[in-house]
Amino acid sequence: MNGVVYEIPPRSGTSFFLNKGQILTVIDPMGGQVADLLSISRADTGEKISSGRTLDYAETLYLTTGFQLYSNRSNVMLDIIEDTVGRHDFLLTPCSEATFRLCYDDEPTHQGCHGNLVNALAQYGIADDDIPVAFNCFMNVPVDGATGRFKVEPPLSRAGDYIRFRAQMDLIIGLTACSAPASNGGSFKPIHYTIDD
Amino acid sequence: MNGVVYEIPPRSGTSFFLNKGQILTVIDPMGGQVADLLSISRADTGEKISSGRTLDYAETLYLTTGFQLYSNRSNVMLDIIEDTVGRHDFLLTPCSEATFRLCYDDEPTHQGCHGNLVNALAQYGIADDDIPVAFNCFMNVPVDGATGRFKVEPPLSRAGDYIRFRAQMDLIIGLTACSAPASNGGSFKPIHYTIDD
Repeated sequence: MNGVVYEIPPRSGTSFFLNKGQILTVIDPMGGQVADLLSISRADTGEKISSGRTLDYAETLYLTTGFQLYSNRSNVMLDIIEDTVGRHDFLLTPCSEATFRLCYDDEPTHQGCHGNLVNALAQYGIADDDIPVAFNCFMNVPVDGATGRFKVEPPLSRAGDYIRFRAQMDLIIGLTACSAPASNGGSFKPIHYTIDD
Repeated sequence: MNGVVYEIPPRSGTSFFLNKGQILTVIDPMGGQVADLLSISRADTGEKISSGRTLDYAETLYLTTGFQLYSNRSNVMLDIIEDTVGRHDFLLTPCSEATFRLCYDDEPTHQGCHGNLVNALAQYGIADDDIPVAFNCFMNVPVDGATGRFKVEPPLSRAGDYIRFRAQMDLIIGLTACSAPASNGGSFKPIHYTIDD
């Protein structure tokens, strides 16, 4: 463990390398905040995290300790090895400027986590259209199984809660501190993360 | 209406143009079969159907008449204008050869709807990695809201049931007759479709 705690300021995003075997811990330092996570193979950036493959193999919407996040080529990218919350979302794609126009028309638009991920990943040649559905850490989207209806509720995470992943391949990670009012209960907060060998 | 009923043979796929304003009807001629549908903008093939954007705007897993299928750029691609079944899936991505290895290890592998879509769309420059989560017509994936667990059940569609879409832009459509045992109750059947002005 290198002991460094990195901070992602509110409504922003970053990217970094995570080597095979390294452990990424995504921490909600104040509670009630969402972090959108993307993973992309360093060996070939066409291989990236896939909600459709992951859900297909997991057979559950609520991914937690013991589940794996798969790529579009059906390879495991990340194992979830610890999780103090147990509620994350893999249905909704990161908010964009269009999302703000369509869903938050009483607020100033913001580029959202989508725009923040586009900016953070451009240096690796990832185009806007290549941003897939992110794994939305701490995002709370309860589903009514009878009707299929769902809504975005404030996260269940409390200050210091975290989710921990082990990389199964050399990865580029994109990670944000959420920009959308609904998913974090209207409060914009930072996200912390650590990388351990 | 041009009166032509096109047939997609069992475990295969096709692609065709659908112009803005035209109506596509996807028909289950025998009942209990699934058809995976992709839409891609003809003006710029980087714009394509997005499960994450569509679910975000619809706020339901069970899309039916009155809902719209959105692109990754938040534009409406297809309106669902009629639906005699009311149960389709937008969670799981089309089966691939890897899906068969991982989920159907007692059966010969098959390229699945993913491979069929790759082959059908290659002529338009769509790469394998660019195939997104498809809208799975007639696919029946009930979800337990309390646990998040879901499973793939046989479709609720009976012979002659259909779902009808109106194009909101000039599209390339990819469409299949499902290749995976679970999603069609172990019976491989054709899919029919019509295109009307």
